[in-house]
Amino acid sequence: MRESDLLEHIFQTSKALRRSDLVVIGPGDDMAMINLAGRRLLAGVDQLIDGRHVRLAVTPIHLVGRKAIARSLSDIAAMAARPVATLVAAALPPDFGVDRANQLFDSMRAVAEQYNAPIIGGDIAFHSDPSKPLVCSATVLAEPSATGPITRSGARPGDIVFVTGLLGGSLHPNGLGRHLTFEPRIDVALKLASTLGDDLHAMIDISDGLGRDASHIAERSNVQVTIDAARIPCNDDCDWRRALSDGEDYELCFAAAPNANVPGQIGGVQVTAVGEVRPAPGRASPDRARVVVQDGNRQLKADDLGWEHSSES
Amino acid sequence: MRESDLLEHIFQTSKALRRSDLVVIGPGDDMAMINLAGRRLLAGVDQLIDGRHVRLAVTPIHLVGRKAIARSLSDIAAMAARPVATLVAAALPPDFGVDRANQLFDSMRAVAEQYNAPIIGGDIAFHSDPSKPLVCSATVLAEPSATGPITRSGARPGDIVFVTGLLGGSLHPNGLGRHLTFEPRIDVALKLASTLGDDLHAMIDISDGLGRDASHIAERSNVQVTIDAARIPCNDDCDWRRALSDGEDYELCFAAAPNANVPGQIGGVQVTAVGEVRPAPGRASPDRARVVVQDGNRQLKADDLGWEHSSES
Repeated sequence: MRESDLLEHIFQTSKALRRSDLVVIGPGDDMAMINLAGRRLLAGVDQLIDGRHVRLAVTPIHLVGRKAIARSLSDIAAMAARPVATLVAAALPPDFGVDRANQLFDSMRAVAEQYNAPIIGGDIAFHSDPSKPLVCSATVLAEPSATGPITRSGARPGDIVFVTGLLGGSLHPNGLGRHLTFEPRIDVALKLASTLGDDLHAMIDISDGLGRDASHIAERSNVQVTIDAARIPCNDDCDWRRALSDGEDYELCFAAAPNANVPGQIGGVQVTAVGEVRPAPGRASPDRARVVVQDGNRQLKADDLGWEHSSES
Repeated sequence: MRESDLLEHIFQTSKALRRSDLVVIGPGDDMAMINLAGRRLLAGVDQLIDGRHVRLAVTPIHLVGRKAIARSLSDIAAMAARPVATLVAAALPPDFGVDRANQLFDSMRAVAEQYNAPIIGGDIAFHSDPSKPLVCSATVLAEPSATGPITRSGARPGDIVFVTGLLGGSLHPNGLGRHLTFEPRIDVALKLASTLGDDLHAMIDISDGLGRDASHIAERSNVQVTIDAARIPCNDDCDWRRALSDGEDYELCFAAAPNANVPGQIGGVQVTAVGEVRPAPGRASPDRARVVVQDGNRQLKADDLGWEHSSES
């Protein structure tokens, strides 16, 4: 069972979510948006688990706390929203220690405040035995920018597909690497939204790999995304295949109108056109790829490249 | 190190929380309250950990999901607020199984919707190995009622202290019991707030035991609470000492003005006067109890009775 299937199960069977007076953007995007008597609020939650998203034994503790918050902040960037506040829950091994716990939360607080989403609430609990792993969850609240939140569902045939920064190789085999130090692209996203206005059609942050994340845009927008392998901006230490599939880059992938005046960089962060949006493949199409990578003359279905964890069952 | 000390450490060193334009009620109450350009929103988070708050091996899965949400809903009751929405994060053992995962989330969704706080977002992840325990966190959002949120800090000398329902014995030695089936007292709290108006001064939900939770009111309000042991409404299977200290009742404890017209029951839930509020003990007082229990002629300091977990270090 894939994690995303589980979430789909929850949300598809929920009648309350179809109450249009409350839920403006339901589950399935980077954040949900609710309507509080005319005031719109975005909310999303993400987890950091020792052994899954970080290896506590080899990672400086302040980078563990940093990533726990930054993962959720990246979802705010994906919606081009403005951070408001953060709530944190942490389950710690009983032998975690006062000094490390303080370091962990100091680093969480620092990164949350750096991005204007101060920690307003939290819950801390200790596991019953020391073999149990650290689990942190961070819920972030945000407000839409003047041009409104950017969802995954607005891409249109003819749009150009862009990514920010460089992709791939974020997770070093030793457990360290850029996945611990990435900058959530909140400022870049807000500048994109204000510069492009209505020409910014869809956006997502690249957490699972460009192939899989672009497929989320394609599926929600009911389109196909084609990516030119040669144009994918790769980090020095990896090729386009890894840049497409590694995940944990926390850069942005977005679709903009073909005539949009997209800058080549924003605040020092490179912006690269990597492909385009086409109509969704027909039902009769034998291989209904949501994302197609063009590698010279070859075409590769890229929907399932990337990082999706499954359970054993 | 106590869990509450850790949270204090985080929040006391946070400059951003003193930005009065955002944070109306900071950490330290049942929920925080922020100000979104004039619209007030309450937010809080709580966790459910296998081995700590529930024993997965002996507990029907739908009661696990129920408690994961109901714990957080009880914080909404404590503030006499109106539920808005819920976000859930769950870390599951990899062998948890599809059926149980679906049951878990169906029960979470059902209780969230029953109390008008639909699940609008979630994150699910699997642990890297089957020995790792289930950890759920639930963040709840709420709006203050017309009379505003009721905090822990408004109790005044002369107030009468009440509790709802019956206390003690919630956690059966076999792991089951009322801690799995309690009703968050949201309706009771809203009716109290509308009936008593400005006469409802302070409130908390009883999760750690009446002694410890009343001490939170006493500390935040800078008063002393005295409780008459004979008046504590006990469940059949326990005495006043357990009713004072067991915790996990998720009933309400509140302080109301002495002339307030407090009903004897609300919607079938008994409301009982158990004590009163006095001025805080002076600095020179040798035993500066925040909560004093009167048992016949004996007086007992009850601040530390109840349920506060510590780490080993």
